[in-house]
Amino acid sequence: MIIIGEKINSSIKNVNEAVLTENESVIKEIVNKQIEYGADYLDINCGTFVDNESKKMKWLIKIIKEVTGVPLCIDSPNPLVVKEGLELLNTSNVIINSITAEKERWELFQPLVTEYNTSVIALCMDDNGIPDNSEARMKIAFSIADKFSTKGVSPDRIFFDPMVKPISTNSQNAIITLETIRNIRKEIPEVHIACGLSNISYGLPVRKLLNQAFLVSAIFAGLDTAIVNPIDKKLMSLVFASETLAGRDDYCMEFITKYREGYFDE
Amino acid sequence: MIIIGEKINSSIKNVNEAVLTENESVIKEIVNKQIEYGADYLDINCGTFVDNESKKMKWLIKIIKEVTGVPLCIDSPNPLVVKEGLELLNTSNVIINSITAEKERWELFQPLVTEYNTSVIALCMDDNGIPDNSEARMKIAFSIADKFSTKGVSPDRIFFDPMVKPISTNSQNAIITLETIRNIRKEIPEVHIACGLSNISYGLPVRKLLNQAFLVSAIFAGLDTAIVNPIDKKLMSLVFASETLAGRDDYCMEFITKYREGYFDE
Repeated sequence: MIIIGEKINSSIKNVNEAVLTENESVIKEIVNKQIEYGADYLDINCGTFVDNESKKMKWLIKIIKEVTGVPLCIDSPNPLVVKEGLELLNTSNVIINSITAEKERWELFQPLVTEYNTSVIALCMDDNGIPDNSEARMKIAFSIADKFSTKGVSPDRIFFDPMVKPISTNSQNAIITLETIRNIRKEIPEVHIACGLSNISYGLPVRKLLNQAFLVSAIFAGLDTAIVNPIDKKLMSLVFASETLAGRDDYCMEFITKYREGYFDE
Repeated sequence: MIIIGEKINSSIKNVNEAVLTENESVIKEIVNKQIEYGADYLDINCGTFVDNESKKMKWLIKIIKEVTGVPLCIDSPNPLVVKEGLELLNTSNVIINSITAEKERWELFQPLVTEYNTSVIALCMDDNGIPDNSEARMKIAFSIADKFSTKGVSPDRIFFDPMVKPISTNSQNAIITLETIRNIRKEIPEVHIACGLSNISYGLPVRKLLNQAFLVSAIFAGLDTAIVNPIDKKLMSLVFASETLAGRDDYCMEFITKYREGYFDE
C-alpha cells in the first residue's frame, strides 16, 4: 500500500496558522510524524492562500526538504504554483495532484507531467462533471491513459482517483466507486489507484467509522494508494489487515513485522 | 444483516461453568445482553458436554425460552441432540447448525430439516473436506441447493457457509472465501450466506483486527448473515457501516437510527 500523508493542508486550522506565520517547527513536526507512521509521500496543499499560494508552496517545500527526502505530492489547482514547486524540487520523483479530463485543466497540467517527467493523480471526471456511473468513469480513465500514452507517460506514473460522492445523497455511491476501482484494476492493471475517503461520509455522523469500512472495501476492490492521515492508528491498522487478507502479503510477513513493531490498534 | 449471537457456547469458560452447574441467571444474562445488542438468532452449543449433551441442550432451550421469543440456532454435530431440541421448541422458526454434503451427515440431518420444516446452515464441504478453491465450493453449494429443492426446501431456508481457512496457511484463503460468497450471491440469490469469522485469523496476532477487516469485505461480497458476538461494539459498528455503504440502506435511515440510539463506536 502506498500511503500519501494528507496532513500538510492549509485547510487544517493549525497548519493554516503555521503557514500564515511561517512557523517551521510546527510543519516539520507534522512532517516527521507522518513519516514515522509510514507515509510514502507527503501531500502539500496551501490552497487557502489564494493571493500568495506560490510563495507559501515554495516555503513549505523548502522547509520540508530540510528534514526529509520523502517525495512530495504537490496539490494545487493552479498550474503556475505546481510549476514553481517542480522547479524548486528538481526531481521527477513527485506526484502532481491533480489532472482531470476537463479540456482546460488537461491542457494546463499535461505539459507539466511530460516536461518534468512526474507522476500524476488523475481524477475520473471531465467537463460534464463526475459521472454517476462506473462505465462513464471508466471511459474517462481509458481516455486519460490513452492520451498520456501518446505523450510517453507510462501507466505506472498515473494514480487514478475513481472519485467518491457522498453515500448520503445516493445509497449506491460507494458501490459505483468500488466498481470503478475494480474495473480500472482489471482493465489497466499497471496504473495506481488512489482515493480520498472523507467525501463518502459527508453529511453523516460517525464519519470515521464509515471511512474505515469504505477504505477496507476499496482495498479489496484493488486500491493500492490511500490519501489518508497516517497517524490515525485504527484506520492504518485496518489498511494493513486488509492488505494481508487481500492476498498481497506472502506468509503474512508484513503483518507480523508491523505487529512486532507495535503498530496495531485493535 | 441477520445477526446470529454466538455467545451461548460451552467452549467459552463462563458458559461452560454455568451449563455444568445449571446456573440459570448467568445464561439468561448473556441471552438478554445479546438480544439487547441486536441478535436476531441465538446460537446454542453445548458440544463440550459429550456424555450428556442432549440433557444440557434441553436445559438451555428451556431456560432461554423463559426469557425470550428470539429464535434459536441449534448447534450440534449430534442429530439426536438436534432432534430433541426441535421437539422441545415445536416451531419451524429455528436454524439447524449445520449440514454438509458429506454423505453420512447429509443423510442424518436432511430428514430433520424437512420433517421439522426448519432453516439450516449448510457448509460448503463434502467427504473430501473443504475444497481449496471457490469453484469446487460452488459445486457443493449447487448440489446442496438442488438436493434440498427436490425435498421441498426453498432456497431462503438455506444459510450457506462458504467456509473460512486461516490466512496464515495460504495468503489466498480470504480471497477464496470472498469469491465463494460473491458467486453464491450471484448464482443462487435467494439463499442466505452466513459465516463465522475467527478461523481467518487463526495463528496470527491482533485477531480482532483481522476479523473486523474480513467481515467488512465479506459484507461487500454479499454476506447477509454473521455469526458473531453482538456485544462487540466495534465489530458491530463496522457491520452496520458496511451495510449502509454496500447500498442496502436507503437514505441511510438504518444508520442514522442506530446513531441516534447511541449504537456506534468509532
